[in-house]
Amino acid sequence: MKTSGITRRGLIRGAAAGAAITALPKSTQAATLTADVIVVGAGLAGLTAARAIAAAGRSVLVLEARTRVGGRVLNHPLDLTRYTELGGMFTGPTQDRIQALAQAMGVDTFPTYNTGNNVFYGPRGREEYANNTPLGTAPVDPVVDPDIILAVSELDNMSTSVPVDAPWTASSADDWDRQTLDAWLRANTSGNSEFLAVTSAATEAIFGCEPRELSLLYTLFYIAASGNEQNVGTFERNFNTAGGAQESRFVGGAQTIALRVADQLGTRVSLNTPVTRIEQSFTRATVYSNGHRCYAQRVIVAIPPTLAGRIQYDPPLPPLRDQLTQRMPQGSLMKFEAIYDTPFWRSQGLSGQAVSENGPVKVTFDTSPADGSLGIMMGFIGGHEARYWENQPEADRRAAALGNLAAYFGNQALSPRDVVEFNWSAEVWNRGCPVAVLGPGTLTDFGAVLRTPVGRIHWAGTETSTFWNGYMDGAVRSGERAAQEALAAL
Amino acid sequence: MKTSGITRRGLIRGAAAGAAITALPKSTQAATLTADVIVVGAGLAGLTAARAIAAAGRSVLVLEARTRVGGRVLNHPLDLTRYTELGGMFTGPTQDRIQALAQAMGVDTFPTYNTGNNVFYGPRGREEYANNTPLGTAPVDPVVDPDIILAVSELDNMSTSVPVDAPWTASSADDWDRQTLDAWLRANTSGNSEFLAVTSAATEAIFGCEPRELSLLYTLFYIAASGNEQNVGTFERNFNTAGGAQESRFVGGAQTIALRVADQLGTRVSLNTPVTRIEQSFTRATVYSNGHRCYAQRVIVAIPPTLAGRIQYDPPLPPLRDQLTQRMPQGSLMKFEAIYDTPFWRSQGLSGQAVSENGPVKVTFDTSPADGSLGIMMGFIGGHEARYWENQPEADRRAAALGNLAAYFGNQALSPRDVVEFNWSAEVWNRGCPVAVLGPGTLTDFGAVLRTPVGRIHWAGTETSTFWNGYMDGAVRSGERAAQEALAAL
Repeated sequence: MKTSGITRRGLIRGAAAGAAITALPKSTQAATLTADVIVVGAGLAGLTAARAIAAAGRSVLVLEARTRVGGRVLNHPLDLTRYTELGGMFTGPTQDRIQALAQAMGVDTFPTYNTGNNVFYGPRGREEYANNTPLGTAPVDPVVDPDIILAVSELDNMSTSVPVDAPWTASSADDWDRQTLDAWLRANTSGNSEFLAVTSAATEAIFGCEPRELSLLYTLFYIAASGNEQNVGTFERNFNTAGGAQESRFVGGAQTIALRVADQLGTRVSLNTPVTRIEQSFTRATVYSNGHRCYAQRVIVAIPPTLAGRIQYDPPLPPLRDQLTQRMPQGSLMKFEAIYDTPFWRSQGLSGQAVSENGPVKVTFDTSPADGSLGIMMGFIGGHEARYWENQPEADRRAAALGNLAAYFGNQALSPRDVVEFNWSAEVWNRGCPVAVLGPGTLTDFGAVLRTPVGRIHWAGTETSTFWNGYMDGAVRSGERAAQEALAAL
Repeated sequence: MKTSGITRRGLIRGAAAGAAITALPKSTQAATLTADVIVVGAGLAGLTAARAIAAAGRSVLVLEARTRVGGRVLNHPLDLTRYTELGGMFTGPTQDRIQALAQAMGVDTFPTYNTGNNVFYGPRGREEYANNTPLGTAPVDPVVDPDIILAVSELDNMSTSVPVDAPWTASSADDWDRQTLDAWLRANTSGNSEFLAVTSAATEAIFGCEPRELSLLYTLFYIAASGNEQNVGTFERNFNTAGGAQESRFVGGAQTIALRVADQLGTRVSLNTPVTRIEQSFTRATVYSNGHRCYAQRVIVAIPPTLAGRIQYDPPLPPLRDQLTQRMPQGSLMKFEAIYDTPFWRSQGLSGQAVSENGPVKVTFDTSPADGSLGIMMGFIGGHEARYWENQPEADRRAAALGNLAAYFGNQALSPRDVVEFNWSAEVWNRGCPVAVLGPGTLTDFGAVLRTPVGRIHWAGTETSTFWNGYMDGAVRSGERAAQEALAAL
């Protein structure tokens, strides 16, 4: 947060750049830069927008608050060649745009490890189940299955009537946007406590929140958005590995995509340049950072809505837009990663995927390197669990999380060679993850202005995407859309 | 929002000061000021805190973003002697602290006009009812009464088990914080559409939102908070005139209280001084505004949580605190005031109070001057109505609102001599009114840090009050509490 000037500097390429890049040299002298378009935020949305604008032959400048690019996508180096991923990392069918961008950047994918049994952990202890049933990743268990099948099927069905570009126009929007997902689940299933615990595990990992915080309409929109122009969204595609959003991973880590786009943009990307103020006049927009001014015809704000609301605007944002940003809090999500010499669970016939009713870690994935040269067990701590455990002593949290892993995969899990924790809520330039959480009433009264430009300002970020909202694919789509808007206005 | 220095200047006393005070002279030179305590925000909470600190013989500096004091309390001059009030204006039984402060400032109260019949407007048209029934201000009507009586009685009853200092510890907190008020109303009354329309009218005026946006637990807390140390809160006290929060008004307008406190504080109050950043070190806090620095031992942040979240903090706020501010959006509230030569409804035996199922204006009060020398009809446009109507052309909105008044009080209402509108959501230093709206899950997971100091920073503002949260009385209580915290730490 210390002052530094807007400077021009290429980015270090590769995984190691995921860690803090050396802070840029301080400048005591005001610099002035001008571009056709200024992009605020060098996450996947902002970088994609900037790339499209540069490709159209227009000048663009990306202002990034951090000393790194990638936003919610972040590699963490473990040694000279190996890394773990602390943010978005998976991709799957219908996520065309992130995959096209990856391909353009020369980043391949490889399958998420998905061989062997999954584990379900509940009051009857540990159960193994085949992960290739019709339920996909969802637990196979006589107590929770009937409700899972019922709820997923019915939510999928309802979601087909929710237009992804205007969820509030669904014929049942009024009804669905005045109740929480929790209320709907209790009213439309057996409501047994085990099933409800599984739904918490799901929303904690998917949204970083509890079912009580989610508008049913927003949940249905999110499901509908888990597809593309050709394929209708399904909840299964959200939570599944095979055939779902966790099917594949990016070689070198997802941040490599961002790093390569930034590398191509070169000096157009300014790190350590937090934007504090955006002014608009009849002739241009002025963007302020650390006392420096940049001028542009159009501005693309590609940061989470809750942070976009913290920028000063002159003229001020319209009331509805400002109040929307007040109603799009980020979810609460930590990643807990235990590093082992080998992915020992594989030899026990386990996929490394677990769903549990007990926290802090309720959902896990095997996120080891593709060659299995190291074992990485990644667990989500989300929603209520994150809010509680982020304030407990590190040793207690670590013991509890490793205790979860041991319950799912055996006592070998208690002795990792290393542990990496990351709390996205503590990140000043995120303040939560993976996505905004919309409660009842927000889409109905405020949704219509989610993407509406405000004068010269266009809005990007995964929260503004009609498909794969909350995912890397949605970020890329939003950047493409915002770039088209800005280019059309130049 | 233009830059100006921290300057020392007394305040203009009296009603006319409610309008914009001349902007303070610009300064290009950094000023440095030091005080034992810096207070951010010169609303009633901040002014009360500063007054207590000054009374204890400590130095204090109040930094106010606007060119006026009073926050959500605002006089609007109509001519040299008469004014209308655009913000908080009423007081009633158990609101001891605002009344004690008013008394100390020499500000008397007078009764809100409450003689004659109230009007209820619904699908069967206009009905008059006596406003001194056991239901108080609530409509007397055979269709809606049974549900009103049932709901108010049951909500009151439930609220008695909600501790105002820790609502999340109520024995039913889990159950009540996972449902919306709307869901509870539908499940526990006949759910008839007329009754539900009345509940919207109520929450639009009281909270600036719809029942679907309110956590049931938060609603119950709000009811429990409508009392004091000796008197249990009741919902009736929220919505009633006689015996309730609308019983009395302050002579000269409620802002007079703030103006007089500010006048006593004199040069301790700096207007036009928006705080952008608060740093803490082992030895002190540094508060930034417009490039100027002020130093203090303790800081009291006395602004709405959603705006407090927009200040930069170094060290950053703890995750739970930051995420709390993301989950306390302000309600949406406009005031529509029609000014007539006389309060013509009085001669027709009407109190000027209406409750309607039709918007934009669903709740009205006679807010004429005490001597009745002018007729002022004040209507609330809140919640969904505000969000829709704030974006309609002024002429359409005015016609619709005057149409409401004509339906309630006759066609004479169509010809005001003047109309005053005020949208609190458009105010950059409020971004909504009258209070924060807490959805399901917020109190449970985040409530515990609502008042917890963060190092040298203490939190005030009506949203932090245990009694009369959301009211002027709560603001004063919060200022007194925060001042005690800060003084104890000096």
